[in-house]
Amino acid sequence: MPVGTVGTVKGLSTEQVRQTGAQIILGNTYHLSLRPGDDLVARLGGLHSFMDWGGPILTDSGGFQIFSLAKLAKVSERGVSFRSHIDGRLLDLTPEHSMEIQQNLGSDIMMVLDHLPPLPSPAEVIKESCERTIRWAKRCKDFHADGAHSASQALFGIVQGGLDLKQRRHCADGLVDLDFAGYAIGGLSVGEPPPEMYRVTGGTTPFLPVERPRYLMGVGRPEDLLASIARGVDMFDCVMPTRNGRNGLAFTDAGPLKMRNQKHREDLRPLDENTPSPLRHLSRAYLRHLFMAREMLGPIALSLHNLAYYQNLMKRAREAIAADRFLDFCRERYLGWGRDPNEFLPTGL
Amino acid sequence: MPVGTVGTVKGLSTEQVRQTGAQIILGNTYHLSLRPGDDLVARLGGLHSFMDWGGPILTDSGGFQIFSLAKLAKVSERGVSFRSHIDGRLLDLTPEHSMEIQQNLGSDIMMVLDHLPPLPSPAEVIKESCERTIRWAKRCKDFHADGAHSASQALFGIVQGGLDLKQRRHCADGLVDLDFAGYAIGGLSVGEPPPEMYRVTGGTTPFLPVERPRYLMGVGRPEDLLASIARGVDMFDCVMPTRNGRNGLAFTDAGPLKMRNQKHREDLRPLDENTPSPLRHLSRAYLRHLFMAREMLGPIALSLHNLAYYQNLMKRAREAIAADRFLDFCRERYLGWGRDPNEFLPTGL
Repeated sequence: MPVGTVGTVKGLSTEQVRQTGAQIILGNTYHLSLRPGDDLVARLGGLHSFMDWGGPILTDSGGFQIFSLAKLAKVSERGVSFRSHIDGRLLDLTPEHSMEIQQNLGSDIMMVLDHLPPLPSPAEVIKESCERTIRWAKRCKDFHADGAHSASQALFGIVQGGLDLKQRRHCADGLVDLDFAGYAIGGLSVGEPPPEMYRVTGGTTPFLPVERPRYLMGVGRPEDLLASIARGVDMFDCVMPTRNGRNGLAFTDAGPLKMRNQKHREDLRPLDENTPSPLRHLSRAYLRHLFMAREMLGPIALSLHNLAYYQNLMKRAREAIAADRFLDFCRERYLGWGRDPNEFLPTGL
Repeated sequence: MPVGTVGTVKGLSTEQVRQTGAQIILGNTYHLSLRPGDDLVARLGGLHSFMDWGGPILTDSGGFQIFSLAKLAKVSERGVSFRSHIDGRLLDLTPEHSMEIQQNLGSDIMMVLDHLPPLPSPAEVIKESCERTIRWAKRCKDFHADGAHSASQALFGIVQGGLDLKQRRHCADGLVDLDFAGYAIGGLSVGEPPPEMYRVTGGTTPFLPVERPRYLMGVGRPEDLLASIARGVDMFDCVMPTRNGRNGLAFTDAGPLKMRNQKHREDLRPLDENTPSPLRHLSRAYLRHLFMAREMLGPIALSLHNLAYYQNLMKRAREAIAADRFLDFCRERYLGWGRDPNEFLPTGL
């Protein structure tokens, strides 16, 4: 899922986002509730029509940004109090309030408010954050089930538990008992080494029902996506294709390219003939020029390319799964990227 | 003509520029010769393929930017020496060199190197700049006529003469004797009051052949365009639609709108139903949000809107001329913009 933080995938029209093959986008509850405000978005007809996106939208709970962006976040059983990163206003977010905001935004998939412990944390802190995450998930579900929106908006639970597989399983079990429409794995990709992320992902998915979507939040590099699919993940969101694109990095089947590099100066080849970006005919030489001259079209073109690259990678992965050759596909891809497949794929397959 | 300074109309793909109705764009010789370099552009196949624009391109001579952007510009009969505004390199530009650069870029319309006197200047300085402009125009024409490019690239002369109609006529006569494919009026819109610009434009066009394009350089506001068409001008270029768009100003038939204004906060209307921008369905409320959140899509959407507004204004002007009701059209438009038509239209019509 491309990330449209404040109601726009940065630099792109929704028509362009559609052209990359994206089917669903993510909106950030924290950002949108601060600006322009979820009440305003609701009065104007909801996020879909506000930003002119006809496809599905997933909204996060706001929790992750509070713990990473806001100042002075304080957690109590009731919820989280924090100061806005924009104007320092003192605000708070409870499980019920997160539901209200997401109902105002009118997303198709809402996420429960979870308690994200910093990594590393003592086992006791991890355990308590899991218990609170389950209690908050229940409050979210109860609040949402009572409302008028429950039929049109799906609600996903979020598994926490740090790097402790016992806690992860405990949290997954608690959430599955509550019966959510889908399950996310949260609290990863926050600085731990990739093998740790793979270990925890692979140790969590077996406890989530296969017939419901399994969503790894905030991940990641192309190699992380395949490694996680191999461990049972169905959905991802990440700012990497757009953020790295804005910074001049293009993902390709031969590995990432730094567009400012002198070697592209006279290279008339497109970035990648097989990536169906709407701007795929632009040459590397021209893209390099745009970045050297700090022209907006450079970040735009690479955002489009990277989103199309990610979407196409997922499409190829789905096709490989359907053809029962997913692991072969992964091995080819890791070798193409110049990586050792054994670093990424589960052992014993 | 939309302005594509360094080989890109800022923030827009060429496909989007095409969708605004633009038929020809302008590239800046000064900027492109410094970065990425006209020799590089030539090796890569010329500016059209470099930036992926299938329509015509006009390049300026580089003179205007040297006088406005570069440091320490010094004029001699041979040409202009100056320091690059990017890295301070000492460079020079002669009439012949300007032709070479524009031949390297491969534009469809090239402009002669002219001598732009600062306004106000003593009559003697204006006179000398006119004489030099004519001599340089001849050197440009001679150089271009000798080359292999003369058949595929048209060359326009540029009339100088400050605010002195006698000098303007003298310069126009000198250039018309040299027989250019089209004629530009330069050295205006540099800070003089609009009525002065209209007076000089209206006092110059009668001395330029009606069967050749007449081009007023660097103009301007929508009201300036109609006022200048009424005085015989056929072509314009200006950064105003894109630059003002990036800064949050939208041109409409009811006058300009400042998109950050609080009054747009809940306004679900599009900017202007009749302006065929590719993003015309976005609401004012959403556009305001994009500018308040400093999102790239705001400047992009308003650049598209303003270019489409300008193109559509010119289309309506052409239709009014064909229907023999151009002055009526102008009067309606000035009243629509809340302006007094008599401030803009020539007297005695």
